[in-house]
Amino acid sequence: MTTTRSLFPVIMAGGSGTRFWPLSRHLFPKQLLRIGGEHTLIQQTMQRVLGCAPASNVLISTNAAQADLIRTQLVDWKEDLANGFLLEPEGRNTAPAIALAAIEVLARDPNGLMLVVPADHVVTGQRDFGAAVQLASQLASKGYLVTFGIKPIRPETGYGYIKPNGKSLLGKRGKLRGYVVQKFVEKPNARKAAQYLKAGNYFWNSGMFIWRAATIMEEIGLHQPAIKASMDRIRKLRTEGASKQQIDEVYRRIAPVSIDNGVMERSSKAAVVPVRFKWSDVGSWGSLDEVAEKNRGGNVVTGRVIDIDSTQSIVYADRRVVATIGLQDMVVVDTPDATLVCPKSRAQDVKKIVDILKQQQAPEHLEHLTVQRPWGSYTVLEEGPGFKVKRVTVNPGGRLSLQMHHQRSEHWVVIAGTPRVTREQEVFDLQVGESTAIPVKTRHRLENPGQETVHIIEVQNGPYLGEDDIVRFKDDYGRTASS
Amino acid sequence: MTTTRSLFPVIMAGGSGTRFWPLSRHLFPKQLLRIGGEHTLIQQTMQRVLGCAPASNVLISTNAAQADLIRTQLVDWKEDLANGFLLEPEGRNTAPAIALAAIEVLARDPNGLMLVVPADHVVTGQRDFGAAVQLASQLASKGYLVTFGIKPIRPETGYGYIKPNGKSLLGKRGKLRGYVVQKFVEKPNARKAAQYLKAGNYFWNSGMFIWRAATIMEEIGLHQPAIKASMDRIRKLRTEGASKQQIDEVYRRIAPVSIDNGVMERSSKAAVVPVRFKWSDVGSWGSLDEVAEKNRGGNVVTGRVIDIDSTQSIVYADRRVVATIGLQDMVVVDTPDATLVCPKSRAQDVKKIVDILKQQQAPEHLEHLTVQRPWGSYTVLEEGPGFKVKRVTVNPGGRLSLQMHHQRSEHWVVIAGTPRVTREQEVFDLQVGESTAIPVKTRHRLENPGQETVHIIEVQNGPYLGEDDIVRFKDDYGRTASS
Repeated sequence: MTTTRSLFPVIMAGGSGTRFWPLSRHLFPKQLLRIGGEHTLIQQTMQRVLGCAPASNVLISTNAAQADLIRTQLVDWKEDLANGFLLEPEGRNTAPAIALAAIEVLARDPNGLMLVVPADHVVTGQRDFGAAVQLASQLASKGYLVTFGIKPIRPETGYGYIKPNGKSLLGKRGKLRGYVVQKFVEKPNARKAAQYLKAGNYFWNSGMFIWRAATIMEEIGLHQPAIKASMDRIRKLRTEGASKQQIDEVYRRIAPVSIDNGVMERSSKAAVVPVRFKWSDVGSWGSLDEVAEKNRGGNVVTGRVIDIDSTQSIVYADRRVVATIGLQDMVVVDTPDATLVCPKSRAQDVKKIVDILKQQQAPEHLEHLTVQRPWGSYTVLEEGPGFKVKRVTVNPGGRLSLQMHHQRSEHWVVIAGTPRVTREQEVFDLQVGESTAIPVKTRHRLENPGQETVHIIEVQNGPYLGEDDIVRFKDDYGRTASS
Repeated sequence: MTTTRSLFPVIMAGGSGTRFWPLSRHLFPKQLLRIGGEHTLIQQTMQRVLGCAPASNVLISTNAAQADLIRTQLVDWKEDLANGFLLEPEGRNTAPAIALAAIEVLARDPNGLMLVVPADHVVTGQRDFGAAVQLASQLASKGYLVTFGIKPIRPETGYGYIKPNGKSLLGKRGKLRGYVVQKFVEKPNARKAAQYLKAGNYFWNSGMFIWRAATIMEEIGLHQPAIKASMDRIRKLRTEGASKQQIDEVYRRIAPVSIDNGVMERSSKAAVVPVRFKWSDVGSWGSLDEVAEKNRGGNVVTGRVIDIDSTQSIVYADRRVVATIGLQDMVVVDTPDATLVCPKSRAQDVKKIVDILKQQQAPEHLEHLTVQRPWGSYTVLEEGPGFKVKRVTVNPGGRLSLQMHHQRSEHWVVIAGTPRVTREQEVFDLQVGESTAIPVKTRHRLENPGQETVHIIEVQNGPYLGEDDIVRFKDDYGRTASS
């Protein structure tokens, strides 16, 4: 299929990533994981929408905490996405985020169509996806709010359902048909879900939409006038050159509401295109079954796993060896700082584990031991009273901020590459096997002017070793104010 | 009870530790683990036998690879055990090891009694143990080979059984009785095991024995004349002042045989004392149930475990958080470099996992990331091409060998304590936060002259980083020849 200049993909990438813990973390949500393919889910999503629209049309709806990691994963489209990031100052569910994207699309093209897609779903069948987008675009151009309906394959109680009005054919393309929506059904109980599955004319609400930006703004104005008013206010503040803080404050005051509850279920313009591509929202460890390759025993196995006799299980190993014997329908996920073991049937309860960790203020709910940064990454190898040991990786051309710590000294030993070190007035390069010491309160900088990735072992000493003991003087990534 | 000058406890400590993998390793067997108490199994065993005999009578039958670790765990009895270690040059099963111990006991006391106990069993009831030893000693003094019989509590198929001749009462003490053995029964099938349990006059063979050293040597001479001949040869070589190598060679040529098969089952002098203490050989993860404390759900839980709804399971966490949901009769063991997950009913198959790791020459079957040394320990934090990062701990007064590496340089950063460093001709102390570099081929030594434990982070660089790249010039622990 061809790409369309007037189609603006909006990738919804604000997920919090509790259900794939411990592989996902609050600051490393599911969309950043490699699931069902060699690319991460957001990379797969980007590639998918590029079949329908040019890269410079793509908008990424996310928040500041996740933007850096997403930029790193979508670095192949760095220039195209330079102005494509829409950062929510705070999560307000999907309706306000979509309204914000609609403003942006309208500013670029008053006739623009929006293709709204979650960043963390798996879709199989690029051709079928393109065809559905084509047909839905036609209906959207006529003023419909079009959803993609997924044919149920099990009596799922976790999704909303859509019933088309079979007598209201709006358009067709090949075997695809578009209809007016007769009704939306909230998450049903098991009995109803079984009925819908049997009936054959109920479809899962996939959370993917196409509409004209102008139409969705009108409908938001009709059904969620407060959001419309906030958007008008934000537009006005922007033209007046107001501060980011002022604008963010307006957004923060919006009451959270989803686009489904807030608009789609209330609108008379809702339409549905039952699609033919395979889809999964990979909503829990158990659902990995739908998208991942299995071995002979029906197990989904990743990493250094030694198994005897297990069946229908999911076993994920990272750095460690994981040995499993005689498991059945189990999930085992082993990461450098946390391990999960549960039956597939209880995988939804991982949320509860994350809640407990959050209450305990345990770092394991927040981020991984390896933390991605714009210049590379670091991994905490060990920490204890008065010391912390990290492996720091600096990409070619990467440069940490010129910085200083009040409470800790650092020692760096080079294990790969040729880093350049700034220490107060001195600037010098280090070779593999060489080291240097950075005393407390000394301005310093680490950079990689070479072609090879730099790896150093950093040993920190001091009474306080928090990441927030940092004074940034200069930074390539605009982080001199905060971390 | 009183201790007896003529009783020589022989602690059999040569186990290979596959069944408690990944907590036990080939070089860190089960006897070194804390199970069913705050002390390790070999420490519990030592304390138990000290109720019956003086510490200087205790003999430890083990091998060179394990002796250092056992010495470290039994450091409270360092002087008493100075001559108490009997090192097998190679495992030859229990009969030759017991014969070697018998020679030693005969040399110390021609009328000496031997109390043979495995180092890795759990016994509850010191008073009942002492009483059983008293009665068994009486019978042993009369020339019997006395075993301790355990009353079966389940139809176990993994143990041998002993049937006393009820008409042959040899002695009594309180409620305890001693009998001539009517027959030994090899590991039975499930039907037979159930019969024995019901019959009530069959007892488990616990692997604990008492006899006169002279009696067991006579019986070995009768039923295993080759072993007796080898022992005579070893005694002769010793009096001639032969080299350790020559003596070891004689031992190596002995065919392996167990004392049960080789002597007890053939001897007319076998006797049994059915005992009243609680006993477990903690032969697998599942058997932890018998000796460990359980929480409300019936789970045995160690470390930072977050659990929802699990029952009758064993969950062991080390440095990491382990989250478990809805487990039933499962075993989850998480160590720094290996994780095991299996149903309790399959815990015996851990052996197979260890075999696979051994075939793969994977380090995880051999030892832990933390390796105990006579001077302290080290932990591998990370390793990769050309580098290795360790945390090295040196006990107060501990001193590594004066050494040199051909292929690696090292950097040391102090994170606790005040180490003294020798580097060629220089000798200097380092403070916390200070560092030093040890270039390739430089003689160096690390020691802890202070009262506080020293911790350093060591970063190694070089093309080859094996532990065997070490030339030892001086060593406090007699290791200048090998590692």
